[in-house]
Amino acid sequence: MMMSRGGAKVASSLMKAAGPRLFSTGTAIRPVSSLEALSASRLLKPPVDSGVSGSAWIWSRAPGFGGVRFASTVTLGEKQETEANPKKTENESVGGDAGGNKGEKGIDSYWGVEPNKITKEDGTEWKWNCFRPWETYKADLTIDLSKHHVPTTFLDRLAYWTVKSLRWPTDIFFQRRYGCRAMMLETVAAVPGMVGGMLLHCKSLRRFEQSGGWIKALLEEAENERMHLMTFMEVAKPKWYERALVITVQGVFFNAYFLGYLISPKFAHRMVGYLEEEAIHSYTEFLKELDKGNIENVPAPAIAIDYWRLPADATLRDVVMVVRADEAHHRDVNHFASDIHYQGRELKEAPAPIGYH
Amino acid sequence: MMMSRGGAKVASSLMKAAGPRLFSTGTAIRPVSSLEALSASRLLKPPVDSGVSGSAWIWSRAPGFGGVRFASTVTLGEKQETEANPKKTENESVGGDAGGNKGEKGIDSYWGVEPNKITKEDGTEWKWNCFRPWETYKADLTIDLSKHHVPTTFLDRLAYWTVKSLRWPTDIFFQRRYGCRAMMLETVAAVPGMVGGMLLHCKSLRRFEQSGGWIKALLEEAENERMHLMTFMEVAKPKWYERALVITVQGVFFNAYFLGYLISPKFAHRMVGYLEEEAIHSYTEFLKELDKGNIENVPAPAIAIDYWRLPADATLRDVVMVVRADEAHHRDVNHFASDIHYQGRELKEAPAPIGYH
Repeated sequence: MMMSRGGAKVASSLMKAAGPRLFSTGTAIRPVSSLEALSASRLLKPPVDSGVSGSAWIWSRAPGFGGVRFASTVTLGEKQETEANPKKTENESVGGDAGGNKGEKGIDSYWGVEPNKITKEDGTEWKWNCFRPWETYKADLTIDLSKHHVPTTFLDRLAYWTVKSLRWPTDIFFQRRYGCRAMMLETVAAVPGMVGGMLLHCKSLRRFEQSGGWIKALLEEAENERMHLMTFMEVAKPKWYERALVITVQGVFFNAYFLGYLISPKFAHRMVGYLEEEAIHSYTEFLKELDKGNIENVPAPAIAIDYWRLPADATLRDVVMVVRADEAHHRDVNHFASDIHYQGRELKEAPAPIGYH
Repeated sequence: MMMSRGGAKVASSLMKAAGPRLFSTGTAIRPVSSLEALSASRLLKPPVDSGVSGSAWIWSRAPGFGGVRFASTVTLGEKQETEANPKKTENESVGGDAGGNKGEKGIDSYWGVEPNKITKEDGTEWKWNCFRPWETYKADLTIDLSKHHVPTTFLDRLAYWTVKSLRWPTDIFFQRRYGCRAMMLETVAAVPGMVGGMLLHCKSLRRFEQSGGWIKALLEEAENERMHLMTFMEVAKPKWYERALVITVQGVFFNAYFLGYLISPKFAHRMVGYLEEEAIHSYTEFLKELDKGNIENVPAPAIAIDYWRLPADATLRDVVMVVRADEAHHRDVNHFASDIHYQGRELKEAPAPIGYH
């Protein structure tokens, strides 16, 4: 069926479950036929010191799932680039990326490592690579959306009025196009958590200190905001000038937030807290527009249904509700982080709210 | 018992389980007595628009676990700094950080969010904030440690010889002090995954693209290397000049790798693959020194026993075995990532090896 060039790896090492499973997992390992093995061995010799025996294995997904194939490339004596052209087979099709739907391009690599295949309880394949079933959750919609941090200090007021002043041109640009607003602003919202997480990670390393879980908490926030983006980009497609604007804004905001976090994490977290408060307000307005019928209440994207464990007939309105709840949780975490700094403490001194949804 | 100033939050929203549990969880929520509530209400008014009712709640851990307390601070009209001094009670002690052992400093915050309390199956408390029980694993020691990528292209050779040339001064500095070597080099090893993950995260945002799971895979690698550090720093304590060296090296390496990844992720991943190959070799030498008795085979640190699910009587040798296996997995992932780039593809086109241990 498929031409293979093999490398050896014990099958069990690939079938390692990563954490608890709600769903069954398995990786299809198919030993090549003796004819294929012979062909493979004529094409390559196992690399020196590899410990590879003469037999050749390929890792493939179960037949019917297409030709994502990770087989050995020649690494001894042959130029890598000549092996760079993946062999196409009848099962392979060009196109599709491995994020939403698994791609079907053959990628030949001696080092190929394929994630475990995961199936849902109903037997269908788990479609997503960027999150696993045990990372999904039901949002807590009872969270208090109206909580607000009243600015009291100079830095608080600076953070508050920075956010308020940024709101003004944003409102002018988007008007009532809340779908587009959500999509574009999530590209911004996903930056602070990543920058903060990274800076805390580097601090933990160079100071030989525990993190208190805050690296993970902030990276979770960043990934959650990115999931908001992955969801809203199914609903609102960006135009070329909106893409250009996003790229520009990322360049500016990433660097500004990075510097801001280095200078004053207290201020940085407070500002994010206020940004989240504004996000809650915007999503509330989004809901009003949906309820008035000004924005079409389309079915929820599949990625949202899986990520937030929504019912199969969920709509955009349900998505906005859970996203808004997420923003409220981020608000809490960031205001809390700022408060910890205000009290002259470091984040690691308080256990981080990991998994706070 | 404890003086409290309360803010309102629905108890159930705090008791949300984050993902599957192997262990029981719970958060102790203690409503304040009517007397305390009255005192609390005299001290503060709920913020405007907060939706907070007159009742006051505090979140505390179960009695006996100390006084990590997250109660409301006044946010209306009173200066934040005057509230910044946490109130100490008889249950609170100063010191300890929230990473390894949970701190017992009272941190007063209206926004206080406490992670769920997790207990192991034997009823003892889960000690760690930076990883949860379901993130632990048994390392796969059957992985082929001898696999090597033979450099074939110019970039491969550049990566290979860069790593080899860095090995020379490293060997001179550390000699056979493998414990110290492991501790210090893990501060370097934890950087590439974070830098790569962050750059892929930003790319996913600005291009409105799926990630294929690679952001998570690289961040997992960074966190895993950081756990190696958290482990080895229990065994080898850094001296002041070693700390200074680590800070300097981080400043140089972080920026160099960041630029390198922007210019050529193919090269960056290949270099990390070779770094991991060298790490495997170093840990093998570490094992030899342990077996010869030149390095004392001390009991394994508690964090390692929990993280890698080692037996309670595990020793440093067992730790080095599992860490070496981790490095082999990282080698595979990075050489694979480089191969994908070599084939003119983007990482997102191949499902990432998430949870590959």
